[in-house]
Amino acid sequence: MKTKTKITVRYAETDQMGIAHHSVYAVWFEAARTEFMREMGFPYAELEKMGILAPLLELHVKYGRPARYEDELLIETRLIKVTHTKLLFAYRVYDAKSERLLSQGSTLHGIVGKDLRPIRLQKVHPAFAQALVDVQEEDDS
Amino acid sequence: MKTKTKITVRYAETDQMGIAHHSVYAVWFEAARTEFMREMGFPYAELEKMGILAPLLELHVKYGRPARYEDELLIETRLIKVTHTKLLFAYRVYDAKSERLLSQGSTLHGIVGKDLRPIRLQKVHPAFAQALVDVQEEDDS
Amino acid sequence: MKTKTKITVRYAETDQMGIAHHSVYAVWFEAARTEFMREMGFPYAELEKMGILAPLLELHVKYGRPARYEDELLIETRLIKVTHTKLLFAYRVYDAKSERLLSQGSTLHGIVGKDLRPIRLQKVHPAFAQALVDVQEEDDS
Amino acid sequence: MKTKTKITVRYAETDQMGIAHHSVYAVWFEAARTEFMREMGFPYAELEKMGILAPLLELHVKYGRPARYEDELLIETRLIKVTHTKLLFAYRVYDAKSERLLSQGSTLHGIVGKDLRPIRLQKVHPAFAQALVDVQEEDDS
Repeated sequence: MKTKTKITVRYAETDQMGIAHHSVYAVWFEAARTEFMREMGFPYAELEKMGILAPLLELHVKYGRPARYEDELLIETRLIKVTHTKLLFAYRVYDAKSERLLSQGSTLHGIVGKDLRPIRLQKVHPAFAQALVDVQEEDDS
Repeated sequence: MKTKTKITVRYAETDQMGIAHHSVYAVWFEAARTEFMREMGFPYAELEKMGILAPLLELHVKYGRPARYEDELLIETRLIKVTHTKLLFAYRVYDAKSERLLSQGSTLHGIVGKDLRPIRLQKVHPAFAQALVDVQEEDDS
Repeated sequence: MKTKTKITVRYAETDQMGIAHHSVYAVWFEAARTEFMREMGFPYAELEKMGILAPLLELHVKYGRPARYEDELLIETRLIKVTHTKLLFAYRVYDAKSERLLSQGSTLHGIVGKDLRPIRLQKVHPAFAQALVDVQEEDDS
Repeated sequence: MKTKTKITVRYAETDQMGIAHHSVYAVWFEAARTEFMREMGFPYAELEKMGILAPLLELHVKYGRPARYEDELLIETRLIKVTHTKLLFAYRVYDAKSERLLSQGSTLHGIVGKDLRPIRLQKVHPAFAQALVDVQEEDDS
């Protein structure tokens, strides 16, 4: 599965270099991940209410061409690796008009409970555990 | 009581106009309020753990001269009004070097429990309720 | 004229109270204002390139009911006052599903050049100056 | 050279998981880098005015233990690699009280002019180019 999330660069997201600040990509990835989970049928807001959290273990961003205020972006999101305890998502940021690849990145997540300690997803929510395996898609880059 | 909180403008806080983005003043006010509460002897982190929250009801900011990257600012904070259910804080943002007043603002807070419903502070934490009255200081502007 | 901008609350926008942080409303208002200007036919990104900037002079937010992660919001935006040197926008934040009013606010802007000094919009860009007057709409609240 | 930058976690930086949001580490690294440059004798604000910019090419963060509201952190910053066109900084985030390592990361920067095109630092600002080489310090982790 692959989702495409539309983002319009906000003024507050720019910095004095005149481009979207590098820290905001993690926020965009998260918004894209939220849409990915919702399309999977497991909205993250609901998972959290059930006590299933997925905090970041690692973040990697590779910045290519800058994004600017009012630019429309498409964030392409895939779940490229699933283990019993971790999830690895990959993102590509495209300019919506030119369809040019601007930047890319990945986020590695642990699966934990409300106390931030690891949980066995297979036991806690087997349907979600299976769905994660089903939507997994190898990176074709 | 009046506290002075030192803030250095972060690059991420600038926008493409080359000045600190207007939304960040609310964040600075909050950092200043955190220091005010700590100096009062009632760190906000501890109050929250006891189930006493103070979410915003109103925010007002009046922007004067802009703040820029690496500028050192002083946020002067006072608690100018205390009622059984509300707190009103006032802030003045000064340039630390020139001592010029740049901007000012205020935040009105409700006092609620973890469910965001009003609580009677006098009953829940009388020592804190009294301390709030004691540190209150009229606006001299 | 009145525009409605859809916002989905981002996880990064929440705080440990479990609600959208109060500072983010100014960012949402700005995103809504961006859409308002674009619908007017004068995208703010283009105005800035022409040397017409509209920094904030004042911000006021009145918080009612909280917004939460993944909530869909509608920001209703109007330009309620236009003078030779200032613009006053008003915003209402609705929950998209329940259509309940959550919060509201306003932003007062000066009209300046790249050096942040006032300019005469009537002289610099008469078509935009006229359009602002045309889209102005009184507050009916 | 190694600098230590003190950061107090802001309430706005927390998320509904009750910890500092992962996107804010890039902002802290930047604040730490600002202090590093200032201690080197080449404040980044001044370099930018001279037309020397250092936007991010890559960001990597490895999250260990979470940071929480009001926690005092120390960000240890080193410049671990310098080439003609790139700079690589490494950061370690410690809890100031317990001195425990919480998280770590790195940022890779290009050296460009105001048009975001590469410049030859050795030619544009030889003193700064030399200083970068002098403060470089290998990663001892």
